[in-house]
Amino acid sequence: MDYLIELISEFKYRVVSSLINQYHTGWVTAVPGFTWCFINMFLVGVSSLLVVFLAPVAAGSGIPQIKCYLNGLNIPRLMRCLTMFVKGAGVVLAVSGGLAVGKEGPMIHIGSVVAAGISQGRVMFFRWSLRSLRFFRNDRQKRDFVSAGAAAGVAAAFGAPVGGLLFALEEGASFVYQRLTWTILFASMVSMFVLALLKTLIHTHSFNFTPGGLASFGAFTFLDTFSVSELLLFLVMGAFGGVSGALFVKANALLTQYRQKYVTSKYGKVIEVVLVSFLTTSIGFALIWLVQDCGPVAFTTNPHPLKLMCADNEFNTMSALLFNTPERSLRILFHEPPGTFNVTTLLVFFPVYYIIACFTYGLSVSSGLFIPALLIGASWGRVIGNWMYSTYPETFPRPGKFALIGAAAQLGGVVRMTLSLTVILMEATGNVIVGLPLLMTLVVAKYTGDYLSEGIYDEHIGLSSMALLPWEPDPLSSSKRAYDVMCSPVVYLEPVMHVRALVEQIRENLHHGFPIVEGPVNPPRFSYGTLVGIISSEHLAIILKHRIFLKEDGSPMRSLEYADYDSEYPSYAKLQDVLQDLTEEDLEAHVNLRPYMCEAPYSVPETMTMNRVYHLFRLLGLRHLPVVDSENQVRGMITRKDLCRFRFERIGDQLRVEELTFSKKVKPKHPGVM
Amino acid sequence: MDYLIELISEFKYRVVSSLINQYHTGWVTAVPGFTWCFINMFLVGVSSLLVVFLAPVAAGSGIPQIKCYLNGLNIPRLMRCLTMFVKGAGVVLAVSGGLAVGKEGPMIHIGSVVAAGISQGRVMFFRWSLRSLRFFRNDRQKRDFVSAGAAAGVAAAFGAPVGGLLFALEEGASFVYQRLTWTILFASMVSMFVLALLKTLIHTHSFNFTPGGLASFGAFTFLDTFSVSELLLFLVMGAFGGVSGALFVKANALLTQYRQKYVTSKYGKVIEVVLVSFLTTSIGFALIWLVQDCGPVAFTTNPHPLKLMCADNEFNTMSALLFNTPERSLRILFHEPPGTFNVTTLLVFFPVYYIIACFTYGLSVSSGLFIPALLIGASWGRVIGNWMYSTYPETFPRPGKFALIGAAAQLGGVVRMTLSLTVILMEATGNVIVGLPLLMTLVVAKYTGDYLSEGIYDEHIGLSSMALLPWEPDPLSSSKRAYDVMCSPVVYLEPVMHVRALVEQIRENLHHGFPIVEGPVNPPRFSYGTLVGIISSEHLAIILKHRIFLKEDGSPMRSLEYADYDSEYPSYAKLQDVLQDLTEEDLEAHVNLRPYMCEAPYSVPETMTMNRVYHLFRLLGLRHLPVVDSENQVRGMITRKDLCRFRFERIGDQLRVEELTFSKKVKPKHPGVM
Repeated sequence: MDYLIELISEFKYRVVSSLINQYHTGWVTAVPGFTWCFINMFLVGVSSLLVVFLAPVAAGSGIPQIKCYLNGLNIPRLMRCLTMFVKGAGVVLAVSGGLAVGKEGPMIHIGSVVAAGISQGRVMFFRWSLRSLRFFRNDRQKRDFVSAGAAAGVAAAFGAPVGGLLFALEEGASFVYQRLTWTILFASMVSMFVLALLKTLIHTHSFNFTPGGLASFGAFTFLDTFSVSELLLFLVMGAFGGVSGALFVKANALLTQYRQKYVTSKYGKVIEVVLVSFLTTSIGFALIWLVQDCGPVAFTTNPHPLKLMCADNEFNTMSALLFNTPERSLRILFHEPPGTFNVTTLLVFFPVYYIIACFTYGLSVSSGLFIPALLIGASWGRVIGNWMYSTYPETFPRPGKFALIGAAAQLGGVVRMTLSLTVILMEATGNVIVGLPLLMTLVVAKYTGDYLSEGIYDEHIGLSSMALLPWEPDPLSSSKRAYDVMCSPVVYLEPVMHVRALVEQIRENLHHGFPIVEGPVNPPRFSYGTLVGIISSEHLAIILKHRIFLKEDGSPMRSLEYADYDSEYPSYAKLQDVLQDLTEEDLEAHVNLRPYMCEAPYSVPETMTMNRVYHLFRLLGLRHLPVVDSENQVRGMITRKDLCRFRFERIGDQLRVEELTFSKKVKPKHPGVM
Repeated sequence: MDYLIELISEFKYRVVSSLINQYHTGWVTAVPGFTWCFINMFLVGVSSLLVVFLAPVAAGSGIPQIKCYLNGLNIPRLMRCLTMFVKGAGVVLAVSGGLAVGKEGPMIHIGSVVAAGISQGRVMFFRWSLRSLRFFRNDRQKRDFVSAGAAAGVAAAFGAPVGGLLFALEEGASFVYQRLTWTILFASMVSMFVLALLKTLIHTHSFNFTPGGLASFGAFTFLDTFSVSELLLFLVMGAFGGVSGALFVKANALLTQYRQKYVTSKYGKVIEVVLVSFLTTSIGFALIWLVQDCGPVAFTTNPHPLKLMCADNEFNTMSALLFNTPERSLRILFHEPPGTFNVTTLLVFFPVYYIIACFTYGLSVSSGLFIPALLIGASWGRVIGNWMYSTYPETFPRPGKFALIGAAAQLGGVVRMTLSLTVILMEATGNVIVGLPLLMTLVVAKYTGDYLSEGIYDEHIGLSSMALLPWEPDPLSSSKRAYDVMCSPVVYLEPVMHVRALVEQIRENLHHGFPIVEGPVNPPRFSYGTLVGIISSEHLAIILKHRIFLKEDGSPMRSLEYADYDSEYPSYAKLQDVLQDLTEEDLEAHVNLRPYMCEAPYSVPETMTMNRVYHLFRLLGLRHLPVVDSENQVRGMITRKDLCRFRFERIGDQLRVEELTFSKKVKPKHPGVM
């Protein structure tokens, strides 16, 4: 992908810059502008068409979706091979089409899909399946693989294997155990190794490689000491990044709501993308002409320095920012010597790019947010760096240091990661010493930002009405007990049932799991018999689909084989559909659930406090939990949704508990906060 | 501590080197040798006296003990203030006394004690207590603080905050949740920040500091590319490190068994330490005279280059290794130019120091193993580096690179950490790029080593007969169910009891927790009534100690206040002692346990498979778990020990299950393996 983007961008910039050199006076200056616009709109349009028509789930960075997936929610088609190809092609086209997007977020999604596919040894698209990997075909194993894949994606994107691990732990994996941590780090290391080796092979044809990722920030060898006063300034920058990030999130959320309402047709989405591409390019072109700031060409690493109206040994510095891939612009902001940028150039670039990036995130293209946010931050950070340089040129000879901190602050303010982002950026700069200032900046950015809004991923998850379980229960939730939270009446089954009775019991209540009980049931007294097991809707669907009923003498017609499960995974038949397929004859049969139920389910006494229930749920990765009384009689069921049912607030000494009402339509708006 | 060690060592080396320059021919050369021996023996002797007589638990690095503590075992006096002071003073004296020990392991222990103390807001030694920190006075909170303290110790020792976090996660924390990860990283960062600032203030009196730790390896700026063939060589070095490390562990384990048997008296231990110190110093002195390898004095950073019989512009290179603090020797091995060391010098130094370090670990002094192991590894690594340099001087101009990999391989072979050690060493070198080769080397070293022996910490834990719970159950353990594992008969209590009956019930069975049951009990049929709650031995002891009995009319005499608990924590009265203090009158009273029991305990059905029970135990950090039947009748109890009761082996297609027998004397020898 990196190579393709480089090829396409190189070609594009070569064509446009030769046109600019040809037509640089009078009205014909518009020729290169239109050429540039046209190329970009074409590339971006194709990217958008792919996403909209082939795999809508490939839009955006994929990080919110991965977060939901790892939290235990299933998102259809997220882990499909087709989604991955669309994402890959889409991001190549979008980035080389000059949109304000990065390729790093999508790398994480692609990594996850690869991992999910490898672990299953099966590609749905090609109807291909590998028997020896059957062991991994269950949700938990798959989730672990997906975390490792996401980490490998980060490792490849930023050359940050440890950062990748921490990203997977901070954003994803619900159940952290040691072997998993291990696996994840190993995958990340291999990913970075292969990437670095391939990159070197392509460029230098030798086996001497430098470890690193796609978005290398260049070596920050000049950073070795910090003064305490500098660190204080970094904290202020962190706070500014938090405010600026929160504003970005709020504006983008409003825009997304607007889009959800008015941009609904498929063609509408494509047209919107092309329009944004047109505006991005034409504004960029206009700025390059309008802001005439020239820098010495001698020190620059910019491969396409546009001369325009500058002197012979100078180039247009705005073009370094806008007539370049975003990664390269970032490196230029970090490393070029102090005189390169005029403060005016940066102060014009910052708000313009801010608005463009804000419009871009949420479009129907594959797009990452990391690089644009870093670029915004680096631009205002470099403004501060320039000021510091002009005030104390001796003490602060490198404005790039401030650009780095600004970039971190802005990105932290938008995505609200701290730990993992610190390590990712530390590894991307290749310098351990920046870790401490980065962490301080990011912590301040996070807290300032959190005061004003949620992180962009949580905001988008909220807008798409999905219910994430936070890491820990509300500290006030110990005032509630299992009986306050549980659902009742309970939809229960018996070990041996008449199929008609079973169907009647579950038809209107298609839950994910059903408790299996024995003995007298007395619903008015909230007592549903003794708990003897539990069965998931998937297994029930398989049993009914394969007609595993009893013969008249009570012996089973056939028993369920492992292959029956395996051939279905992960797209089990929907219980709903199976129920409709049952014939009148089937309904008269009996079914014995005992051999297929889980006969020792986790359960909790009804008096257990809610926060202990929550820990059980979260740590063991449960989806439903029977609540029993002291005689092991089922009293209710707790599901993921019930855990988000209450919102606690402490007002003075009073504890106010608000119960949220759920229906299939109305889901919690900000599930991340609970 | 660092400053003190530097002061004392500086003084010592100045005295001895001036003596050497004075008496350098004939028999009087023995004068500086004896002076050196005497100073060292004095320093080390005092260190040993402190440890042996004031705080025996301060011996060694403290890492195995911290590991046990975080696993859920209580080790008396481990977290005391006195232990910390003895550890600190002891390690300063031992390191400046020239023993083959490092100060890094003890830093981890000290960090943990500080954290435990701060979190409790109470220092037992000074009888000082802070009311506002009462919230943290429970085992779980304290354990979290201890993990953070250990991480802060690593951060201070190696300038490795992320490494510290990973160390705490890899070696310690049982229950990893996000907020903990966070807290740990924050503590580590602050720790490194303060250390780096203080170090700079002491040395340069300025606020411009370079982040870094005590054991800085110096900047590896020359490392930027690796070739694939080099990486293959690193793998071989990893394997050698694994073998060499395993040999070290085995030899040290034998020595430790010998010590446990024959060196038991307090004075014996001190004499052993002084003897080892004498041998270390005199062998070192002899080697400096015997191996006459001279290097050019021009490039060295060695502050005390001994000339001895070398030419005027040269110095004795063996003295660079032995007449120096180990940290400085390590830096010299990493960074001095290729010509500095003769292969012979290194080949003599390696086995001698190997044997000395092996004898030293396990002595009754505070001593870390990291630096000696790194030094051993760096010496053989540099041998390889020298060979490579002499064969291909163009391709491998820096033997220090191989010294680094050798050091990592050796340390990895001894301690068997991978993930955390990679990051620790990466941060200590200040170069992100070494991460990949380090990880590859360490993984190979771990697997090679694991094939031959356990890691040194697990070996020592095994030798001291403590039972660690591994992270995950044996994959074969799903063949066992809760009823196979549980203890029965059960020592049960009733909600309201005659004190005499209670005492009779528990006198012979002082467990950590007792289930509270109601209804008919039928021990011959393994049925012990309905589970209604559970009470820990600590709470029971408090109730009995404060005589919370019932009046004749059934109302309680007084109720237990929070202060009653708090004043006892963490040294609850022993249940045993409380029982003996009960008078005849007390025994006639009744006690109502209902208000003080946990009324909604976690419990599992008897048919649950052992690996699910194990996960519940490990993830929720339980110490005892009632097993119930389908009517919620108690059938047995599972404790930590029961989880290690079976050893599984698959021989061909057969599953062999061996039941280990426990008594108070015989505990599992290798609990780490299970």
